[in-house]
Amino acid sequence: MNNHQPKSVALISKKLHNQSLSKKEIETIINEIVSGSLSEAEIAYFIMAVKEKSLSLQETAYLTEAMWRSGVTLKWAQKVIADKHSIGGVAGNRTTPIVVAICAAAGLTLPKTSSRAITSAAGTADVMEVLAKVDFPSTTLQTIVKKANACLAWGGALGMAPADDKLIRVGRILDLDPEAQLIASILSKKLAAGSTHVLVDIPFGPEAKVTKQKALRLKKKFLALGKQFKLTMHVVLTPGSEPIGHGIGPILEARDVLAVLQQKDQPKDLEKKSLFLAAELLELTKKAKKGQGKTLAVSLLRSGKALQAFNKILDTQGRKNTKLQPAKHQHTIAAPRSGKIQHINNHDINHLARLLGCPETKSAGLYLYKHTQGKVKKGDPLLTLYATKPEKLKAAMAYYKKQQSK
Amino acid sequence: MNNHQPKSVALISKKLHNQSLSKKEIETIINEIVSGSLSEAEIAYFIMAVKEKSLSLQETAYLTEAMWRSGVTLKWAQKVIADKHSIGGVAGNRTTPIVVAICAAAGLTLPKTSSRAITSAAGTADVMEVLAKVDFPSTTLQTIVKKANACLAWGGALGMAPADDKLIRVGRILDLDPEAQLIASILSKKLAAGSTHVLVDIPFGPEAKVTKQKALRLKKKFLALGKQFKLTMHVVLTPGSEPIGHGIGPILEARDVLAVLQQKDQPKDLEKKSLFLAAELLELTKKAKKGQGKTLAVSLLRSGKALQAFNKILDTQGRKNTKLQPAKHQHTIAAPRSGKIQHINNHDINHLARLLGCPETKSAGLYLYKHTQGKVKKGDPLLTLYATKPEKLKAAMAYYKKQQSK
Repeated sequence: MNNHQPKSVALISKKLHNQSLSKKEIETIINEIVSGSLSEAEIAYFIMAVKEKSLSLQETAYLTEAMWRSGVTLKWAQKVIADKHSIGGVAGNRTTPIVVAICAAAGLTLPKTSSRAITSAAGTADVMEVLAKVDFPSTTLQTIVKKANACLAWGGALGMAPADDKLIRVGRILDLDPEAQLIASILSKKLAAGSTHVLVDIPFGPEAKVTKQKALRLKKKFLALGKQFKLTMHVVLTPGSEPIGHGIGPILEARDVLAVLQQKDQPKDLEKKSLFLAAELLELTKKAKKGQGKTLAVSLLRSGKALQAFNKILDTQGRKNTKLQPAKHQHTIAAPRSGKIQHINNHDINHLARLLGCPETKSAGLYLYKHTQGKVKKGDPLLTLYATKPEKLKAAMAYYKKQQSK
Repeated sequence: MNNHQPKSVALISKKLHNQSLSKKEIETIINEIVSGSLSEAEIAYFIMAVKEKSLSLQETAYLTEAMWRSGVTLKWAQKVIADKHSIGGVAGNRTTPIVVAICAAAGLTLPKTSSRAITSAAGTADVMEVLAKVDFPSTTLQTIVKKANACLAWGGALGMAPADDKLIRVGRILDLDPEAQLIASILSKKLAAGSTHVLVDIPFGPEAKVTKQKALRLKKKFLALGKQFKLTMHVVLTPGSEPIGHGIGPILEARDVLAVLQQKDQPKDLEKKSLFLAAELLELTKKAKKGQGKTLAVSLLRSGKALQAFNKILDTQGRKNTKLQPAKHQHTIAAPRSGKIQHINNHDINHLARLLGCPETKSAGLYLYKHTQGKVKKGDPLLTLYATKPEKLKAAMAYYKKQQSK
C-alpha cells in the first residue's frame, strides 16, 4: 500500500483481475508511460496483463487512440494520405522502399516512417540509412514529403506515439507482442502520421510472426478498428515462411531494393511481392481501377519512373554515397549434395545475420542464392556470409553447423 | 534475438508457454536474480509467469531449494531448531515475540528472523527495533542464540535466501504473491535458518491475505513440501478478518507485546492467539505432550518466565531505552451511535496506519478500543490516531471519513 504509486498500478492490477478498462483508465496508463512515471517492471506487468487477459476490441480502440494522442501528429493538405505496413518477422522482406517509390511515382502522398530492427537483421530504417539520411524532426519531414511526394524516414525521432517505443522495448525482452498491443502500435502510428488509406501485409506461416489462424484473426480486428477510426483499410495475408530477396542485412538488402528499382538482376520474389503490394495500394487509393493496379505498378517500375521517384526521395532526404559493398570477411557455404531445397528456416537466417553483426554493422549479413523449391547440384553455393570481423564469421559458421546437424 | 541476454529470459518464456522447468533451470533463474543479471522487468515477467502458469509441487520444491542454497545458511549443534511463521496481512498480529519468549523459556532454540513491513503497518522486525538492536551479521546471531536460546532479529541483513528480497520488492508493486513464490519464500528462509520444526500460521478470511479455500490449499502444499525437505511441520488456520491487539504501529504494538508478557492490561485476543501458537509449537517439538502444550505455555507466561526469557533476548541483542510513547498529535474517534460493532476492515486499518506514518515513524499508528462484536455506547472511543505531524493526522481523518461514508 504505497501512497506514492502511479495511478496505473491499480489499473494494471484491475486488468490482471480480468476487468475491463475504461477509455480514461487506458489514457492514464499511456500518459504515465509517456511521462516516465512507470518503472520497467510496471510496464512489464502491463504488457503481461494485456497478453494474459487480452483486450476487447473496444479497449484496443482506446489503447490505439491513447497512443495516437500522446505524441506528435502530422497534418496534410491532401485528402488521400497512403501508408503500408508489414508485420515483421520475415528476413529480407524489404518491399517498403519499392512500394513507396512506385506509389509516389503514381502521384500518391506517402509520409512513410519505419522502425529500425527489433528482433530481425534489419528494419526498413536501417536499410534506408545506408542510402540517405533518415532522421528528421516532423517539420522537416513535412517539407520532404511536399517536395518528393513521399519519404522513407525513421519514425523513432519524430515523437509519434511515444508510449509505443517503451512498450516495444520492454516487450522485446521476452519477445512479447500481445495482439492488442501489436494492433494499437501500428494503427496509432498510422493515425499520428495522418494516414487515410492503409494497406497492412500480414506474412503468415510456421516461421513467420503469426500462424494463418492468428493472421485471419488479426485481419478481422484491423478492419473493425480501421472502420472505427475512419481509415480506408485493406489487409492482405502473404506467405511468410522463408526469406524474401537475396540479401539479408542493411547493405545487402539495399542492393536488392536498388536491383528491383533499376530492373537489373533483381530478385524475382522481392519484385513480385512489391508489385503485388503496390497494386493493392494503388487500387485502395483509387489511383488505379479495381483489377488494374498491377498493370499500373508494372509500368511505373519498368519505365524507370519508380526509380526516378526513389531518387527524388533520396536526394530530398540527403543522399549518402555509401559504397554498397558487403563486409570483407566472407565465407560461402556450398550444397553438400544435389537435390531440391525443402525448407529455409527464417528464424535461423535472422539469427545468423545477427551473429554476423546486423543491424549495427551495415555491411554484415548474408546472401541467399536459392529459395525453397530451388534445385541445386552438389557444390553449388547456397549462401555467403559477410562480417567485418573473422570471429563473427566463425560464430555464425558454428551456429550454422549446429543447426544443420539437428 | 539479443545475444547478450541472461539465460533466464528463455526459461521465463518457457514457463509462460506453460512448460515445466527443471531443477537446473530454476537454479539458473534464481542465481541470475541473485547476481543481478536480471532487470526489474525480467523479474516482473518471472513473477507473472509463476502467477499465471503456476508451478507444480516439484517445481516449487526446486524453487525453494534454489532460494535456500543461494545465500547464507546457519548451522546449529542442537537437534531441534524451532521456528514459527505467520502469513502476513492481519493488522497488529504481533504474536511472534510472545511465542518466541514462551518457547525460549521452555528451553527451545529459536533463531527467529523476521521481515520489516511489506504492505502492512509494521513487521515484527519494525516492532522489535523499538526495543532492541535487530540488525546482525550471521556470526553475531549465532552468539546471541547461544546465550539467550533465541533471537528476534531482522532477516534482511543476513543474506539468507537473497533472491527472495528482490522477488518480494518487484512483486509488491502489484501486490503479487503467487502461491508457489509465497511457499518457497517462507520455506527457503526456514531451511537457511537451519530450522527443523516449523509452525505455520495462516490467517484466513475475506480481508486476510487468503480465503479459507486458499488457506487449505496452502496448508496441503506446505505439508507436502515440508516432508520433502524433512522438516517437522504443523500448519494452523486462524481467523484473520480483523486486527489483533489494541495497537497498530511499531511502538503501539511493542506496548501490546510487553503488556502480554508483563501480564498487565494485556489485550486478550493477542494473548490468546500467542498462547495457542506457543502451545502448538511446544507440542510439535515434544517440549510438551500432546494436549499439554497450552498448560505449559500458560504457566511460562503467568510465572514471568517468558518475560524473563524475553528480557534476556533484549539484553543480549542490545536493549534500547526508547520511550514507548505514541506520537503527540492525536485524535480520538468516538462512536456516532450505540450498538454492536459488526465489522472492522483490516485493510482500512492498515492503510490508516500507513497514512499516519507507519512503519517509518515508530510512534505513529492507532489504538483500537474495541473489536468485532464489541458493544459501544454513543460517544465511546472507538480508536485513537497518532502522528508526528498534523497533516498526516488530517490525511488519515479524511480517509477514515471517506471510508465511513461508503
